[in-house]
Amino acid sequence: MITIEEALKIIKEETKIIGLERVDIISSLNRVLAEDIYSKDILPPFDKSAMDGYAIKFEDTTVCESAINAELDIVGLIRAGEYYEDELKQGQAIKIMTGAPVPKSANAVIQIEKVECKENKLIISDVVKKDTNIIKMGEEINVGDLAIPKGKVIRPTEIGFLASLGYSKVLTYKTPKIAIISTGDELLNIDEVLEKGKIRNSNEYSLMALCKNLDLEFISLGIASDKKEVLKGKITEGLESADIVITSGGVSAGDFDFVEDVLEEIGAKINFTSVAIKPGKPVTFATVKDKFFFGLPGNPLSLITTFEEFVKPAIKNISGFNKIEDDMISVLAASKFKARNNRRKYIYVNITEKEGIYYANDLGNQCSNHLMTMSKANGIIIMNEDVREINVGDKVYGKFIFK
Amino acid sequence: MITIEEALKIIKEETKIIGLERVDIISSLNRVLAEDIYSKDILPPFDKSAMDGYAIKFEDTTVCESAINAELDIVGLIRAGEYYEDELKQGQAIKIMTGAPVPKSANAVIQIEKVECKENKLIISDVVKKDTNIIKMGEEINVGDLAIPKGKVIRPTEIGFLASLGYSKVLTYKTPKIAIISTGDELLNIDEVLEKGKIRNSNEYSLMALCKNLDLEFISLGIASDKKEVLKGKITEGLESADIVITSGGVSAGDFDFVEDVLEEIGAKINFTSVAIKPGKPVTFATVKDKFFFGLPGNPLSLITTFEEFVKPAIKNISGFNKIEDDMISVLAASKFKARNNRRKYIYVNITEKEGIYYANDLGNQCSNHLMTMSKANGIIIMNEDVREINVGDKVYGKFIFK
Repeated sequence: MITIEEALKIIKEETKIIGLERVDIISSLNRVLAEDIYSKDILPPFDKSAMDGYAIKFEDTTVCESAINAELDIVGLIRAGEYYEDELKQGQAIKIMTGAPVPKSANAVIQIEKVECKENKLIISDVVKKDTNIIKMGEEINVGDLAIPKGKVIRPTEIGFLASLGYSKVLTYKTPKIAIISTGDELLNIDEVLEKGKIRNSNEYSLMALCKNLDLEFISLGIASDKKEVLKGKITEGLESADIVITSGGVSAGDFDFVEDVLEEIGAKINFTSVAIKPGKPVTFATVKDKFFFGLPGNPLSLITTFEEFVKPAIKNISGFNKIEDDMISVLAASKFKARNNRRKYIYVNITEKEGIYYANDLGNQCSNHLMTMSKANGIIIMNEDVREINVGDKVYGKFIFK
Repeated sequence: MITIEEALKIIKEETKIIGLERVDIISSLNRVLAEDIYSKDILPPFDKSAMDGYAIKFEDTTVCESAINAELDIVGLIRAGEYYEDELKQGQAIKIMTGAPVPKSANAVIQIEKVECKENKLIISDVVKKDTNIIKMGEEINVGDLAIPKGKVIRPTEIGFLASLGYSKVLTYKTPKIAIISTGDELLNIDEVLEKGKIRNSNEYSLMALCKNLDLEFISLGIASDKKEVLKGKITEGLESADIVITSGGVSAGDFDFVEDVLEEIGAKINFTSVAIKPGKPVTFATVKDKFFFGLPGNPLSLITTFEEFVKPAIKNISGFNKIEDDMISVLAASKFKARNNRRKYIYVNITEKEGIYYANDLGNQCSNHLMTMSKANGIIIMNEDVREINVGDKVYGKFIFK
């Protein structure tokens, strides 16, 4: 049995990038950028009006500092998308729309709401400062500037930025494809009526949902019965068609838990088989050439917890994320929590917020079978290996789940 | 111009559920459940072993409280998925796998690691308590119990829980389909070389990414030129094929901003056209029979900000979410921030965390054109209407973006 930190260190060392993929920018959402993006343009590509108004020479409004109005000749109109070739002369103004290029020698734009028009004359009663309402050419970025560095997670903002820079495709780190296998003779399909001794195969669906939540491609290979050859066949099939194979169940010390045997037979490098986490503990991680294998426990809560704590960091490392751990928050216990073993305990709780402080509220039974408890939870708190009791008001670390 | 609160109140009042949809549970991920889910079964459906070990009568280990070992006859094996019909008698033990049903009259399971076997005899040297390692029938849920209430957001946990209860499909609130339109004669396609006075149509891509991030179906109707009839045609097309139409640009006071005219011509009920937010302000929201229209500003930062602040809450309300606002956090200013207008300012910052406290770091230019600033940001802080200055160490409200 190793610690959670040791397990994460091994996962970080063993897993690596599995490839690069150039995809259209919409498909790149939430992936990691695998190239530095430089600007091929100067943005904005011209001095640009920030407002609907009139382009003027600011000096025309400062000739006289008294309240006497400036009166300018309106000489035309520049729509967005147009370009005015002539120079603006002293005493002239030109109507200009938001986003349109400011003509040469104009040096300010006054908002439409702040002026008066009389026939072809523009009347300005305020002094206008130089560069008012002008977005300067190159203010955002210049040719050759680094726009988005390699390693950045691509969000809607980056997609808009890439589009504005003329990138319709970008190089990203490949995300792994997952194969899912459920093990156990006790499993029924989810639409079957329960029989004596049987339960429904819920883990397959939890795993599919966990993969879908991470935008991953996945295939489900269904239920493997408790026969070694059947399990070996499914694992081999999974390793051929996917980058990571995940099984649920079959990793305890029972007579029909063949996962470890199968891994040995196919020449896998078994990295660990047991981690000091509750719910969890029997969790196997192996490397099979350039593919990876996770054997997760069959108890529904243990399965989801070990996926979040070990499989997700592996997937993030493979997909090029710099940061593979979740953000922790500081939480005050609003209930008393007890535990009695030497593993680190992940307690599913309801985290509430009041005046900027988070409180952890007990949800009762933490039995690793109870999806009901987990369904009421929005977070976890962590009870360290040596801690047996948390009292009301104690400060603990926690995090939100699926957020 | 109305306040942000007024705008959100109007959005909440105007938008409503657009329908229900029964979908398979994997497709229901991140949607809102539109029915109460009751259990049709008792779970676990039998007393179940939590460990690989031996089912025994606990009394057999307490006969003698001294260190003398109990010796029991091993009478069989119960695999997961099997069912043992006979009663266990005094002095007997039966090997049992994790998840297998505990036989009638057995009342404890001792872990395999804690016993010794000699031929057909089981030697136990510890006293075992009643119900050790037994998960009781019905401990999780009973027939007719409410398992998941209507209104709950369906996460991987709920999908596992639904599967375990035998639900392969569930009733959810329909999510809206979005039609996207960019307006403006200055727009080029993103793979075109910049010409005088033109910029690339990045907003279409930002909007597609924002919709994809919310798991929504969307169609893009491309660029509408600054001609009223063209814009009217596109908006009409969008309202026929989608539930919400979003335009970018064309909502300022300029001579070629026809959005409001078009809305009036098609008989839309215009709910608001201007909100006291920066970046943002010119944002139009209208109801057209049972469909909705958002006219967002054309500046890239204003576009994304108003989508997040107004369109996203509308989408969430339509999709049945109880909570439509983002979570706010308390943040300390790590830089000085200045502003000079009467709208509420959303300042894009880099939020860092140290010992449980969040700090907001300045990223410079907040010009609503600068996607570069937003690309460096992971959050915003909010500067109220009447605030002109935030100093280092001041406590402000903020939130993370795209998280």
